[in-house]
Amino acid sequence: MLKRLSSNSNFSKGLWKILNQRNMSTSKLDASKLQVTRVSQKSQPKPNDQLVFGKTFTDHMLSIEWTMEKGWDAPVIKPYGPITLDPASCVFHYAFELFEGLKAYRTKDGKITMFRPDKNMERMNKSAARICLPTFDSDELIKLIGKLIEEDKHLVPEGQGYSLYIRPTMIGTTDGLGVGYPDRALLYVITSPVGPYYKTGFKAVKLLATDFATRAWPGGVGDKKLGANYAPCILPQLQAADKGYQQNLWLFGPEKNITEVGTMNVFFVFKDSKTGKKELVTAPLDGTILEGVTRDSVLSLARERLDPKEWEVNERYYTIYEVSERSKKGELVEAFGSGTAAVVSPIKEIGWQDEDIQVPLLPGEQSGELTKDVANWIAAIQYGKEVHGNWSRVVADVN
Amino acid sequence: MLKRLSSNSNFSKGLWKILNQRNMSTSKLDASKLQVTRVSQKSQPKPNDQLVFGKTFTDHMLSIEWTMEKGWDAPVIKPYGPITLDPASCVFHYAFELFEGLKAYRTKDGKITMFRPDKNMERMNKSAARICLPTFDSDELIKLIGKLIEEDKHLVPEGQGYSLYIRPTMIGTTDGLGVGYPDRALLYVITSPVGPYYKTGFKAVKLLATDFATRAWPGGVGDKKLGANYAPCILPQLQAADKGYQQNLWLFGPEKNITEVGTMNVFFVFKDSKTGKKELVTAPLDGTILEGVTRDSVLSLARERLDPKEWEVNERYYTIYEVSERSKKGELVEAFGSGTAAVVSPIKEIGWQDEDIQVPLLPGEQSGELTKDVANWIAAIQYGKEVHGNWSRVVADVN
Repeated sequence: MLKRLSSNSNFSKGLWKILNQRNMSTSKLDASKLQVTRVSQKSQPKPNDQLVFGKTFTDHMLSIEWTMEKGWDAPVIKPYGPITLDPASCVFHYAFELFEGLKAYRTKDGKITMFRPDKNMERMNKSAARICLPTFDSDELIKLIGKLIEEDKHLVPEGQGYSLYIRPTMIGTTDGLGVGYPDRALLYVITSPVGPYYKTGFKAVKLLATDFATRAWPGGVGDKKLGANYAPCILPQLQAADKGYQQNLWLFGPEKNITEVGTMNVFFVFKDSKTGKKELVTAPLDGTILEGVTRDSVLSLARERLDPKEWEVNERYYTIYEVSERSKKGELVEAFGSGTAAVVSPIKEIGWQDEDIQVPLLPGEQSGELTKDVANWIAAIQYGKEVHGNWSRVVADVN
Repeated sequence: MLKRLSSNSNFSKGLWKILNQRNMSTSKLDASKLQVTRVSQKSQPKPNDQLVFGKTFTDHMLSIEWTMEKGWDAPVIKPYGPITLDPASCVFHYAFELFEGLKAYRTKDGKITMFRPDKNMERMNKSAARICLPTFDSDELIKLIGKLIEEDKHLVPEGQGYSLYIRPTMIGTTDGLGVGYPDRALLYVITSPVGPYYKTGFKAVKLLATDFATRAWPGGVGDKKLGANYAPCILPQLQAADKGYQQNLWLFGPEKNITEVGTMNVFFVFKDSKTGKKELVTAPLDGTILEGVTRDSVLSLARERLDPKEWEVNERYYTIYEVSERSKKGELVEAFGSGTAAVVSPIKEIGWQDEDIQVPLLPGEQSGELTKDVANWIAAIQYGKEVHGNWSRVVADVN
């Protein structure tokens, strides 16, 4: 039953603490309890050129039920198939839903690895806590996702740019229309073999700097990967598309701070025309910005690899006015979005009021220099050509 | 297929216009196409004292599928039952979902009426358009909801305070993880017999004036009845409950404007200590406030029935500071929330920083004077003791 928090409920002061502690007194997520029901016949991998992002799925899914009373039930790997819910389920009415997106890669030496799954699990737990869905032990879910990938490892595509997109999802499944916290939930993971985001190399995008709609707000949930952040962004995206731009560049506040692009974080490169020093800049994590794993990876690698005599790497507020002014002064060097799907997405133009700010690209190419470097740095780690700390976690051996 | 709007899609400038026009070129919602499959045996009404809000449902539900290609399919009334969806359905990932809440009443003269359904349908269409779900002809859906209520009319409870809560819901059902507009949707309506919100008369609530979380903002979707607006509000509500308050009084901006309370609109009554004139005030519809049907009803009736020599009725910005100051000057007369579930919900105390603002109640009662009057005015119309324009729409004859 969905607990009501309205004035006539029995809600008491202590319940919030109980809610916080509920995972301690009930069953924890336990990968060792995994039960596996396999498909009768494994499907054949599709040719790489027939893979469509998020439309082609593998044979199996991971599914774990949770109740407030008992905690996490035994995890189940079973054939990919539909979910059946009561029409009064709270996921349909009050958006009790969150997700993650990460990828597994087939490496040259016959391994399958996940890229930084600990970061995604950390964020997933933050998202869950924010909307009163249950939290869980990250390592256990990573183990379970590893098992799921192992079941379908023949479907992890091979080749640079190809990967297995992993979509962990959690929904509230309490039946009832009272607005309160869910006492039932379902955590499930589906996986989709995907090709390169840009089939023929980079394709730089045009953005519409958007202040007619606002993606996120201080005190809101813009830093969490909740379903709630997505549906409201489609109409502004269509409005941008109607004007010939592929994505929104989300501005915030009277200052017109640059926050994100479409469903990605965004980076700009400026060059001080007096000192010649370059700056890689992105917005700080102030609660309105999605805490992107690719964003974090870009920042880490840039700080390690860019010569501090030539570069500064900054998380700071910056505005569309600064971008416009520095463009006019010839100080705008390049710009790109960052996210799991495309890794980096070069930007070539930004529409802002009556002006179209041109973002430089390398001559004859669809990207700036750092954009290309960053993409290569990350790809080398993802495809196992290079080891970077614990960023790549082996989940299966293909041989 | 869920249309991708990413940079490598075929999304063209004209598509936004096509999306706007899609309902013109495909099948419209048509109540005359209704197909009915009845339960084999009608259920018996539960005793009034066993009704739980949003937990007890009637025998049937209304279900209508929509596809971008064909438009609205034939409406179906069928036994209440589960919904089966692909785990990649966009409702689970990106919160393509919206709902409405309205009520039907059994009147003394043996009719069943809906209260102002046209207002709910108007808002439902606005919610749909905002997240790119399909719009529909309001009158056709009102007819269909009427048919649904007629099928289960024996389950509409009788007696003052009892009613049938109606929950129209629309979800995006496109299978696919690309973030774009849905090309499949399901509109369904379920109904729940409900009792009075306050079983033993009013019970005034304590609110926590909340600026540590923000419900809605300009350029956002706080004026739409989207699932996305609800899940993020539960944690702040638990935090309020932990401090001994039943609901949040949502503040906005550095001015600390009062916007809403919990999931209701909110009204305050002030009395100018010099002139003796009273003011009924609520926040204006600026895009951050839910356009409540009860709010509109309260404003309409207040403007009709309160003596303008003694009263002003204002939709204006007002802040928690004003409430605090006027309380100290003895100018705070009463306050109440307004919504479909409770109609009006009296307020007795507001926690704000280190102060607890006491809101006067009638001696020995749980409500102020106007709060009680407004509740009676609306109940008289809802239960058919009084006719008010076209607010009550007859949907079935019980005899």
